[in-house]
Amino acid sequence: MKDSTASSQVVPLTNSVVNMPLYTQVREALREQILDGTYPPHSQMPSEAQMIRQYGVSRITVRQALGDLQKEGLIFKVMGKGSFVSKPKAFQSLSKLQGFNEAMGQSGYETHARVLSAKVVAATVQVASRLHIKPGEPVFELQRLRFLNREPLSLDVSYFPQTLGERLVQEDLAVRDVFAILENDLGHNLTHADLQIEAITADETLAHQLRVNEGSALLRMERLTHAGEVPLDFEYLYLRGDAFQYRLRINRS
Amino acid sequence: MKDSTASSQVVPLTNSVVNMPLYTQVREALREQILDGTYPPHSQMPSEAQMIRQYGVSRITVRQALGDLQKEGLIFKVMGKGSFVSKPKAFQSLSKLQGFNEAMGQSGYETHARVLSAKVVAATVQVASRLHIKPGEPVFELQRLRFLNREPLSLDVSYFPQTLGERLVQEDLAVRDVFAILENDLGHNLTHADLQIEAITADETLAHQLRVNEGSALLRMERLTHAGEVPLDFEYLYLRGDAFQYRLRINRS
Repeated sequence: MKDSTASSQVVPLTNSVVNMPLYTQVREALREQILDGTYPPHSQMPSEAQMIRQYGVSRITVRQALGDLQKEGLIFKVMGKGSFVSKPKAFQSLSKLQGFNEAMGQSGYETHARVLSAKVVAATVQVASRLHIKPGEPVFELQRLRFLNREPLSLDVSYFPQTLGERLVQEDLAVRDVFAILENDLGHNLTHADLQIEAITADETLAHQLRVNEGSALLRMERLTHAGEVPLDFEYLYLRGDAFQYRLRINRS
Repeated sequence: MKDSTASSQVVPLTNSVVNMPLYTQVREALREQILDGTYPPHSQMPSEAQMIRQYGVSRITVRQALGDLQKEGLIFKVMGKGSFVSKPKAFQSLSKLQGFNEAMGQSGYETHARVLSAKVVAATVQVASRLHIKPGEPVFELQRLRFLNREPLSLDVSYFPQTLGERLVQEDLAVRDVFAILENDLGHNLTHADLQIEAITADETLAHQLRVNEGSALLRMERLTHAGEVPLDFEYLYLRGDAFQYRLRINRS
């Protein structure tokens, strides 16, 4: 991408809307080139200096245009390296409770999971409180890396009552959702989940596992899944902000 | 906080659960001190060197404990400065569609908004497509900074059909929700909204407006609010990841 633009002459902004501010015109020109694949996902955008020459605008105009695209999530900055094109984001609907394979498979994505660890640990205060046990009591911890089209998308850290967890890991967790096993193999009638959704930045470990830069934006979800009154599955999900979004329709009343 | 720990002797980890790994014990000790107010919101955590001395553990153990607390959002790192305690997070329920004042006021928070700009602009491709108009056609843009207990929590950039926007800004947008004005003053029957939720990092402008560091995690929401089939209000919301979360209950079927 660098080469195709570095040598360009000043490109007249072809936008027919005359009363658009200059930075808006630059932004929309860049957006079009991102969406039509001129700048493909993960490619580096031209430098500010290159854009100044290319569009014949000031540095402040270029920065405003890039800032808007970054806010939209179309590009992301890497400290000291410049701006890069984000991938089109996969999304999962929150209209109903679904496992990752179940939700993403319906959208035609290829999914799999890598089990990073599966073991009995002492419940932390928070895990214990969610699963209605005492802090320090044994609980089953399952860490999985979820892949979407062969790229890591999320780290899922799940906690189950000990005997349930020991039963779960006898199944093929690389290809099956925990929800499917709980329902179809173990006869639990899953009813609902309580979710908390936050944004955090990736620490060194998460960045390494998800193959993003340290400091990248992540969605963090806490999800407590119930069968009736019984909490069965408490999870921390860490999802790549550059590659994923949740969608949802909500009603006014 | 620095002083209260810098001079401490080695503190035996008092956790009675003997089979907890060392880093888990350090993490839970730190968590307790965050939650009991020993380390108040926005205070700096002791340095790694101080914790190594204080708990008599290795650097890798301290890092693992801090990494876990960061993943949970209890602390956040500032490049080159160390770790700081996050504030308890305010949350908004996504069970039904509510304006910011309406939702947060119910939880006892004090809210207000500062109107940063209110003007007619040319619709971008995305705004036009959401509001069912043509790109470049005039649309009303309203930028507001939302405050929760006198601290900035989110930047809301909203787009309305031009005449609707011009009518809206005659009302007191510092204290009233747009939804309330649309319904009570203008007789629109709001029915539902479509949401997209993502995570991004703050650019320089957003960081300045929200009083966070550049690179901080933000929740980004796109929200398109309808009255029946008619899209009335398309918004980009940027919410501080260190101070806010969404909550939601979803059903399995």
